[in-house]
Amino acid sequence: MTLAALIDDLVSANHILYNEGVVDGFGHVSVRHPERAERYLLSRSIAPAVVTREDIMEFDLESNPVDARGRRPYLERFIHGEIYRTRPDVHAVVHSHSPSVIPFSVTGTRLQPIFHLGGFLGAGAPTFEIRETGGPETDMLIRTPDLGAALAETLGSAAYALMRGHGSVAVGGSLKQAVYRAIYAEVNARLQADAARLGDITFLNAVEAANAAATNDQMVDRPWELWKMRVADWNKRP
Amino acid sequence: MTLAALIDDLVSANHILYNEGVVDGFGHVSVRHPERAERYLLSRSIAPAVVTREDIMEFDLESNPVDARGRRPYLERFIHGEIYRTRPDVHAVVHSHSPSVIPFSVTGTRLQPIFHLGGFLGAGAPTFEIRETGGPETDMLIRTPDLGAALAETLGSAAYALMRGHGSVAVGGSLKQAVYRAIYAEVNARLQADAARLGDITFLNAVEAANAAATNDQMVDRPWELWKMRVADWNKRP
Amino acid sequence: MTLAALIDDLVSANHILYNEGVVDGFGHVSVRHPERAERYLLSRSIAPAVVTREDIMEFDLESNPVDARGRRPYLERFIHGEIYRTRPDVHAVVHSHSPSVIPFSVTGTRLQPIFHLGGFLGAGAPTFEIRETGGPETDMLIRTPDLGAALAETLGSAAYALMRGHGSVAVGGSLKQAVYRAIYAEVNARLQADAARLGDITFLNAVEAANAAATNDQMVDRPWELWKMRVADWNKRP
Amino acid sequence: MTLAALIDDLVSANHILYNEGVVDGFGHVSVRHPERAERYLLSRSIAPAVVTREDIMEFDLESNPVDARGRRPYLERFIHGEIYRTRPDVHAVVHSHSPSVIPFSVTGTRLQPIFHLGGFLGAGAPTFEIRETGGPETDMLIRTPDLGAALAETLGSAAYALMRGHGSVAVGGSLKQAVYRAIYAEVNARLQADAARLGDITFLNAVEAANAAATNDQMVDRPWELWKMRVADWNKRP
Repeated sequence: MTLAALIDDLVSANHILYNEGVVDGFGHVSVRHPERAERYLLSRSIAPAVVTREDIMEFDLESNPVDARGRRPYLERFIHGEIYRTRPDVHAVVHSHSPSVIPFSVTGTRLQPIFHLGGFLGAGAPTFEIRETGGPETDMLIRTPDLGAALAETLGSAAYALMRGHGSVAVGGSLKQAVYRAIYAEVNARLQADAARLGDITFLNAVEAANAAATNDQMVDRPWELWKMRVADWNKRP
Repeated sequence: MTLAALIDDLVSANHILYNEGVVDGFGHVSVRHPERAERYLLSRSIAPAVVTREDIMEFDLESNPVDARGRRPYLERFIHGEIYRTRPDVHAVVHSHSPSVIPFSVTGTRLQPIFHLGGFLGAGAPTFEIRETGGPETDMLIRTPDLGAALAETLGSAAYALMRGHGSVAVGGSLKQAVYRAIYAEVNARLQADAARLGDITFLNAVEAANAAATNDQMVDRPWELWKMRVADWNKRP
Repeated sequence: MTLAALIDDLVSANHILYNEGVVDGFGHVSVRHPERAERYLLSRSIAPAVVTREDIMEFDLESNPVDARGRRPYLERFIHGEIYRTRPDVHAVVHSHSPSVIPFSVTGTRLQPIFHLGGFLGAGAPTFEIRETGGPETDMLIRTPDLGAALAETLGSAAYALMRGHGSVAVGGSLKQAVYRAIYAEVNARLQADAARLGDITFLNAVEAANAAATNDQMVDRPWELWKMRVADWNKRP
Repeated sequence: MTLAALIDDLVSANHILYNEGVVDGFGHVSVRHPERAERYLLSRSIAPAVVTREDIMEFDLESNPVDARGRRPYLERFIHGEIYRTRPDVHAVVHSHSPSVIPFSVTGTRLQPIFHLGGFLGAGAPTFEIRETGGPETDMLIRTPDLGAALAETLGSAAYALMRGHGSVAVGGSLKQAVYRAIYAEVNARLQADAARLGDITFLNAVEAANAAATNDQMVDRPWELWKMRVADWNKRP
C-alpha cells in the first residue's frame, strides 16, 4: 500500500470512528508508516471527524514530530509511540473514550468475549491503572513516554486494553483491524452490560475466542466497505 | 410474484434490516426461489446495506451456488439451506447479530412475547448451543451442513431461534414476515430486558401469543411500506 | 381552528409521533371534529409516518366511517371512539407502543411523574388489563366497542393509561396537548426506569404534579414548533 | 470578543445543545454581556433549536428585559440572573433537562467524575431541593428571584448543580466551557449509571478531578469546532 493511499485510509478511519460512535470530539487513531517502521502517522490535535489529509503528521517512535510545520500534536501521542516501539506486530492504534467500555474500566468486571465478533478480547481485556506509574495525582492523561511505556506494558500481547477512568486502546496488524476491534469492543461491552442484568453469562471459551478471532480477521473488509461508504462524502464538506 | 420483483424485495430487505438496526456489517437474508422450491436466493458475501441486484446469487439446498460467476458466498449459507430443507413452510430466513437479542442467548433468561407484536415468539425462543454438535472448539460459525442441520433441528417448528454467543435466525412464510419477525424480536428483547429490571413480568399467555401473531401476520404490509420508503433512494447511490 | 388547518395538524402529528420515537409502523392519532363533537378524524390503516391529507377519514362515535371511499380503517379505532364518547373534555387521542412505557405495563411498577414535564401523570398512570373484559384468549387488540369502553373506563379522568402487553393511550384537550403527553410519557418512563436502578425515587407529590402540569399546558406550543419544523418537508416526499 | 460574534456563538450554542442531546424543546443557555458585566443575553421563550439572532434578548441582573420589543422571556430566567449576580467568575449558564442526569437528581446517588472529561464535577454535584425554599406546593419552576437565589446558593462555587425532579445547571467562565460541561455531565451521568450496575466504582479522586479539569479547560475548542460544524447550516433554514 502506498503512503498516499494509507493516508486516505487514515482520514477515513478518523471519520468512521466518529460515525460509528467510538470517538467523539476526543480520541485519535494512528498508523505505522508503510515504508519506515520507526515512524507513525497521526493527525494534529483536532476532533477526528474534521480531520483531512493536511492534518496528518509524521512522528518518530519517541513521538517527536518529524515536520510539524506549526501543527500542534496530541498531548497523548505517547500512547501510539510507545506501543509501536514495543509491539513490532502492531501497525495501527486507536485511542478512544468509547462509552460502553469505560464502565468496565472503573469496576471489577472484566470485559470478555460475549459473541464471536468480540473473539479478539481473548481471556478478557487488561486494565491500565495510571496510579501505579503516575501516582495518585495525575491528570489521567498519557502525557509522557514513561506513562505510554507503562500502558504498553499493561497491554502486553493483547489486542485491547482499558484505561481506568479514561478510555481504551485497540491495536491491530492493519488499520482496518484496529478499527474493527475498536468498534466491536464497544459493541461487545454494551452486550455484556445488558447481559449482566439478565443472569450469569456463558462467554466464549479461550479456543472459541481464538478461532472466532482468526475467522473474523479474514472478514474485516466487509464492514470496512460499509463504514467507509457512510462517510464517503465527508471530504467534500466545505 | 415474479423472480425479478422478489429480487427487488430481497435487496430492499437487506437495506431495511440495516436501517432498522437488526444487521450491521454482518448478517444476511435469503428467500426461497419463487418457482423452484429447491433453490434459494442470497447475496454474495458483502454487508447487507450495500447489496444490489447483481449481488444476489442462487443456491441449491446443499448450499452450492448454481452460477457463482466469481462471486464469493457467505461462509454461513448453510443456515439458510438446511432450514429450507427441513421446513417446507419457510420461504425466507434472516440471520443477524441483533444486539438486544444476544444477551438472551448467553444467559438462562428465555426470550418471550412481552407484547402483541412479539406474539410469534410463542412459548419462548429456543437457543442453539453449537458445542452440542460442534464441540467446544469451533469458531462459532455455521460453516458446515451438519451445523446448519443441527441449528434447524433446534429451531424445530418455531419462528425464531437464538444462537449462543453468536446471534439469531428469524424465519417466515414470506420475506416480509421474516423481516417483520427479525425486527420485532429485537424490539421485544429490548422491552423484556428493560422490564426485567422493574419487576416480575406478565408475558402473553400461549393463546394470546398465537392469536396476536395471527392478527399481526395480516398486517406486515403496513410497517413494510414504511421501512421500504426509508431506504427508497439507496439504490441510487453511486 | 378550521377543519382544513386541523387536518394539516393531524397529518403533522402523525409524522411527529414517528419522528420523536413514540410510534413506529404501528400506532395512531385522532382528533375530534372541530365543528361536530360527535365525529372524529383518524387516518386509514397505514403507518403514521406515511399519512397524508387524503388518508384522513371521518368517523362517528360508534367508530363507523362516515365516508370510507374504499379506505380501510384501523382495527382498533374503538380506542378513539369510546374515549371521545365518555370524555367530552378530550379532543385528541394518541395510541402507541411507546417503547419505554411498555415495561411498566407488564410489571407492578407504576409510571409516576419523575420530573415537572411528566406532571400530567398525576398520582400515576392506570393500567388496562384486557383479560378482565375480554378473557384470557384475546389477540390483545381493542377490536370491539366493548373493549374500547372498558379501556375508557380504566382511563377514567386521567391523561394517560397503559395497556398490559400492548401499549398506551394519551389524551388531551387539544391535539398538541395529546402529542405532548405521548412524547413526555415516553421520556418520563425512560427516566424512571433509569432512576429505579440508582435507588429509591422521590417523585413529584400530587400538588407539584398538578401545578407543573398546569404550567406546562401553557407551553405546548414551544416544543410543537420544534417537532413540526423537523418534519416540515415530509409532505413534499414523492 | 465583540457582542456580534458572541451572539453568533450563543445562537450556535442553542443549536449545539439540542443536536448533542442536552436540551429538547425546553432548556436555555445564556451568556454574560461582554462589555457590561451587569447584563446577560438569553433567547426569548422558544425552543433552543429554532433560536436565531433576532431572538436574543438582553436582561439586567434582576432579570428584567432591557428592550423586550414584544418578545416574551423564559419564565425561569431567574436561574441565569441570580447565578450571574452571585458568581462574578461565571460568564455562561446552561439550564437543561439533560436526560441521563435527572435520575441522579431524584435518588440518593451522587453524580461524580467517572472519567477525566467529567473532572469538573469535582467531589460530586450538589442537588437543589425546591421544597426547602419554595415549600411542598410549587410547580417546580424557578419562577422568582428568591428561588433563583436559593439555587445559586446550592450551586455555591461548583461548576454544575442538579435540580430535584427538574434538571440541572452548568456554568462556565466562557460559553464554550459551560456548553462543554453541560454535554459531558450528560455523558458522565450515562457512564456512571451504566457502571453502577456492573459493581463498585472507582471515581477520580479530588486531585485527579481537579487536574483533569484544568487540562480539559485548555481543550474546549476541539469539540466545539466539531459541534459547531454539525449545526453549521441551521441558520440557513427557511
